[in-house]
Amino acid sequence: MPNEPNVTAIDALPASEARWIEFQKISWNDQAGKSRVWEAASRKTRGKSGVDAVAISTVIRHPNRSPSTIIILQYRPPVDAICVEFPAGLVDEKETPSDASLRELHEETGYQGKLKYISPTIVSDPGMSTANMQLATVEVTLKEGDKEPEQALDDGEFIERVVVPLDDLYSRLIKYSDEGKKVDARLWHWAAGLHFAKTML
Amino acid sequence: MPNEPNVTAIDALPASEARWIEFQKISWNDQAGKSRVWEAASRKTRGKSGVDAVAISTVIRHPNRSPSTIIILQYRPPVDAICVEFPAGLVDEKETPSDASLRELHEETGYQGKLKYISPTIVSDPGMSTANMQLATVEVTLKEGDKEPEQALDDGEFIERVVVPLDDLYSRLIKYSDEGKKVDARLWHWAAGLHFAKTML
Repeated sequence: MPNEPNVTAIDALPASEARWIEFQKISWNDQAGKSRVWEAASRKTRGKSGVDAVAISTVIRHPNRSPSTIIILQYRPPVDAICVEFPAGLVDEKETPSDASLRELHEETGYQGKLKYISPTIVSDPGMSTANMQLATVEVTLKEGDKEPEQALDDGEFIERVVVPLDDLYSRLIKYSDEGKKVDARLWHWAAGLHFAKTML
Repeated sequence: MPNEPNVTAIDALPASEARWIEFQKISWNDQAGKSRVWEAASRKTRGKSGVDAVAISTVIRHPNRSPSTIIILQYRPPVDAICVEFPAGLVDEKETPSDASLRELHEETGYQGKLKYISPTIVSDPGMSTANMQLATVEVTLKEGDKEPEQALDDGEFIERVVVPLDDLYSRLIKYSDEGKKVDARLWHWAAGLHFAKTML
């Protein structure tokens, strides 16, 4: 039975010690020709693809269940909470984002699917960070009686996967949030767009 | 006619110089009881609400036009590109996120609307940052002949607003991306959820 993860200390991180991220002081000229400075965080791990990370929106089709997606729950130290997210991960040095999407989906959820689409490169929080990503859409087709597959997690990875009917996704995210879990903004926006289409159009 | 903004230099930012963001070295115990370290970026501007920022998904209703939303285009130094985003901004020190949503929508787009809903606190990029936000849904009701309102931008803010029929949003984002603009991941996810509801369910 795993322990409850917890933060024990938050200290200032000297730039010289940082291994995964770095701070940039960006000098730029604005639209009025004025010289200005912007501060940003950046990942040090970006590989040849030029894309830091991928996330995967999955649709599971089954002969007699309603279409579902897969979300994951994992503890995230920066927000000291269990986060609710699409399966996601960093793109390896020589990997394509498409390959990373199928790999991460398999590792984090056990499911193997067909890549239907991958988004252009989009930016995660461009007011404060250089981080970018692509969102993949993967279809998993199940037959009657197919068993739930095994996750392929690394040692020390604790990730819970949850299959959620798409009709329940939005209310499920509200419920998780009410319980004190933190929903990832990107997953929230996807579910909110889906919900909007059903209720406000 | 404004100039084309551009980055002139990217330097390492010493922690002692950083005014807007800071680096955290987070010590935490994982699920196996092992002591570990995580690196994260954090905004220094979070106020009393505990929420860094808001974004606004608007629906404009008009007697004889299809429902539309408002997106904004602005240059973002961290990604050295024009970004395509929902209207958004930081929550002021003593402001509520709901008030910030209506204020930012008005400043960035000129439109004034009614707050229909505001999301729980969601996390922007919880693998690398403490940043959080809330997503507001605002409804703007126009009458026949209403003029496009004036933006209320600060000096030195260059923000273009674009009203887009919801039916065209997804293809518009692809077009912007093809042109070299960078779409914000949260806006992309919202549009992808909407598009998914129309095409894959």
